[in-house]
Amino acid sequence: MFTRVKISIFLLFTVMCLLLVPLKAQSIWENDTLALDSIYKDVLMHSQSGEWLKYLCKQVGHRLSGSPAYQSAVEYTSQVLDSIGLDSVYKQTFLVPHWRRGKPSEVRVVESATGSFPITSLALGNTVSTGENGLAAEILMVHSIEELEKLGKEIVKGKIVFYNRRMPDEVINTFHAYGRTVDQRYNGPKLAAELGALACLVRSVTTARDDEPHTGSTYHNPDGGNIPALAIGMASADRLEQAMRLGKVRLWLFCEGHFSTDKLSSNVIGEIRGSEFPDEIIVVSGHLDSWDQGEGAHDDGAGCIHAMDVLHTLRRMGYKPRRTIRCVLFSNEENGLKGGAHYADQAKGRGERHLAALESDRGGFTPRGFTFEGDAPGFIPAFRKVGSWSDLLAPYGLSLEPGGSGADIKPLQPQSTLLVGFVPDSQRYFDFHHAATDVFETVNIRELKMGTAAITSLIFLMDKHGLSAH
Amino acid sequence: MFTRVKISIFLLFTVMCLLLVPLKAQSIWENDTLALDSIYKDVLMHSQSGEWLKYLCKQVGHRLSGSPAYQSAVEYTSQVLDSIGLDSVYKQTFLVPHWRRGKPSEVRVVESATGSFPITSLALGNTVSTGENGLAAEILMVHSIEELEKLGKEIVKGKIVFYNRRMPDEVINTFHAYGRTVDQRYNGPKLAAELGALACLVRSVTTARDDEPHTGSTYHNPDGGNIPALAIGMASADRLEQAMRLGKVRLWLFCEGHFSTDKLSSNVIGEIRGSEFPDEIIVVSGHLDSWDQGEGAHDDGAGCIHAMDVLHTLRRMGYKPRRTIRCVLFSNEENGLKGGAHYADQAKGRGERHLAALESDRGGFTPRGFTFEGDAPGFIPAFRKVGSWSDLLAPYGLSLEPGGSGADIKPLQPQSTLLVGFVPDSQRYFDFHHAATDVFETVNIRELKMGTAAITSLIFLMDKHGLSAH
Repeated sequence: MFTRVKISIFLLFTVMCLLLVPLKAQSIWENDTLALDSIYKDVLMHSQSGEWLKYLCKQVGHRLSGSPAYQSAVEYTSQVLDSIGLDSVYKQTFLVPHWRRGKPSEVRVVESATGSFPITSLALGNTVSTGENGLAAEILMVHSIEELEKLGKEIVKGKIVFYNRRMPDEVINTFHAYGRTVDQRYNGPKLAAELGALACLVRSVTTARDDEPHTGSTYHNPDGGNIPALAIGMASADRLEQAMRLGKVRLWLFCEGHFSTDKLSSNVIGEIRGSEFPDEIIVVSGHLDSWDQGEGAHDDGAGCIHAMDVLHTLRRMGYKPRRTIRCVLFSNEENGLKGGAHYADQAKGRGERHLAALESDRGGFTPRGFTFEGDAPGFIPAFRKVGSWSDLLAPYGLSLEPGGSGADIKPLQPQSTLLVGFVPDSQRYFDFHHAATDVFETVNIRELKMGTAAITSLIFLMDKHGLSAH
Repeated sequence: MFTRVKISIFLLFTVMCLLLVPLKAQSIWENDTLALDSIYKDVLMHSQSGEWLKYLCKQVGHRLSGSPAYQSAVEYTSQVLDSIGLDSVYKQTFLVPHWRRGKPSEVRVVESATGSFPITSLALGNTVSTGENGLAAEILMVHSIEELEKLGKEIVKGKIVFYNRRMPDEVINTFHAYGRTVDQRYNGPKLAAELGALACLVRSVTTARDDEPHTGSTYHNPDGGNIPALAIGMASADRLEQAMRLGKVRLWLFCEGHFSTDKLSSNVIGEIRGSEFPDEIIVVSGHLDSWDQGEGAHDDGAGCIHAMDVLHTLRRMGYKPRRTIRCVLFSNEENGLKGGAHYADQAKGRGERHLAALESDRGGFTPRGFTFEGDAPGFIPAFRKVGSWSDLLAPYGLSLEPGGSGADIKPLQPQSTLLVGFVPDSQRYFDFHHAATDVFETVNIRELKMGTAAITSLIFLMDKHGLSAH
């Protein structure tokens, strides 16, 4: 008797469980508010993003495209994507420029009113060598390309040009402040070369107040006529500026930089095929390459982890996307943008239709929202549709604004209704950007996970509701 | 002729300047949008908050109320307030409890299935000593006060109780997660003592994943019957938990903690007297004391710097407040709340009318908004009035919500129309809270300055427009 009751209770319990499991699974995704709440909770409890980022930073390290480390990053992320049970994981392979730094640069003030002193420096990406004896010349300090242009060849010729403009402190969004300053790094050395300068120093484009130099691309003329160009630390730039106020300054510098033949490199791609509209693709992406300093933790380890973690979250939570959700880890963002260009070419060749492409390339900080751009005919109704989800996203501190998306997805613009940039808080990003200080320890794992949760929420809403007006 | 033209141009220029200066100065404050933009720019360019916080952290260091370091903090902040040209700077002096840690605590597992191993520990604030030989007993692990209560005296007696509840990862706002966990630290040891336990260990209430123990107040019964209570690091708690899964664990521990007679301590106050309604007071505050670990950088060096920096900003920008703006740096928030109680008593005694009191005590992170509470008759219209400024504050990522304010201003509730809590991003705060890791280097100075700008903006709007419905 007792046993029968127990069996009955057991059967009743089993039936209830069988009924409840699909009910629960279904109801989460039916109610958007509940879905977003579940996504955030699931990510904060179960995301492995901290472990993944740690491996990428500590075991792979920095990974300029074309380097052996980049290849290790391709292998590691492919394994991770394989392990989360996607419908397909594959690579796109193409040629990327290959530049190497060589020996560490050296810069020294050899004559000035304040004597001789060292300057902390780092060759800019794509730069050329000085030759093994280095070179010495008088310094000419300017604060903009326009200022150098006005000075003209007579004055610039034979000098070492020093671009000394700071990122403007008063601009709240540091990406805007960066945008107002970075031309001196990318185009400054080019103009200096054209005007006959021997070399070029650039005050690091950073919000930090230390002496860490921050590298990054500078223009390289394939036809020659390039000059050595180096970033210098903030404290060094301050000291140099001070010395120049007191009179002429003469400086010696050495740096190396070499291009060799292009190398094969790969984008890493993993996807969940859509159950209803497999031909409508939603991309979530970051770039796998980094500069050859630090560990590429925020730039853009965090973005790659976000992209992989979004797919992992959807899989773990048992969500069956209606559209194809594709994670793309681009190669060569830092010094050539070949990965983004190749992906767009391939997509065009296959006649793929992208509903949206999102890139996370602004670090692993607490999410503040998303920015949207596009010029396809469906852009306006799609942006309106996204805007209708404001009330769902606002409780998570997420705003939706027009604005830039990402360098790697930009070539997709003709083929993608929406291009989306993930916007985390910007205050700390340029403390570490392109410097030896961009390491795992500067990423707060809760903040990183919040990024995954925010992006997963938006991707879920786009997948579930589409981007058409009705 | 040429000279006359030059003189005329000079005169014209001078007259224009004389006309423009007051026009500009006036127009900034007349247009709220322009005013907030100017406040943010001015703070990001000119705030000295980084230097102030560095001094407080590195020269003064941690500063439990009643300690000589606290007195140094009083002197330093008084000097800073004196230096910014306020209408008055003064102190309020009163008695605070005085507790000292003594020798570092030691905890060691002496018998377990996984052998003997050390546990990283830190005595909780207000705790008592074990005696110099320490004590040893078997461990009893629970996850809540309720669980211990159910076990009862028979089981608890003679044991060392280990409260092992984690902060819930899935709660986005870490202050809410803290609120759900901290009872085991404050009330847990008290109950364990009542049930006859010999000592109490508490898993640190933290979001960090290191082994750093986090202290904080625990209940102290002035009539005796207290037991030694210690926080243990997260990694140590994990190891202990694992050992307990395999069988009985016996542990030896030593700790010291002493109360001596109450000491005199002070709140530090500085104010700008209102030009039109000097009797309507707006308080901006933080607490100057900290736990006796690290440097009290986020808790609550950042809040004190915010409070001083708001007044400095208004002075530097030449704003003449209509109401009295008062900076209050409270003593004894961490272990007695005597500073807040004394301030409220004095305010009541003098019949002072507080329009609003704001506290910054959630760290120096990027601002997300403000929370408001109150029960005075004017609260609802005042909160509505503040709500009418949402569109001005939203572009800075600031939201306005009902919610808690601050422990030091809470006693002012009967006398203050609004109590306001400053809300920075919460993700990182409990990584450092009450631990040796709460040091200057963990504060990003741009984020700290954004806090000043956000608080100054709200204080400006409250001062200019008041809090009445019309």
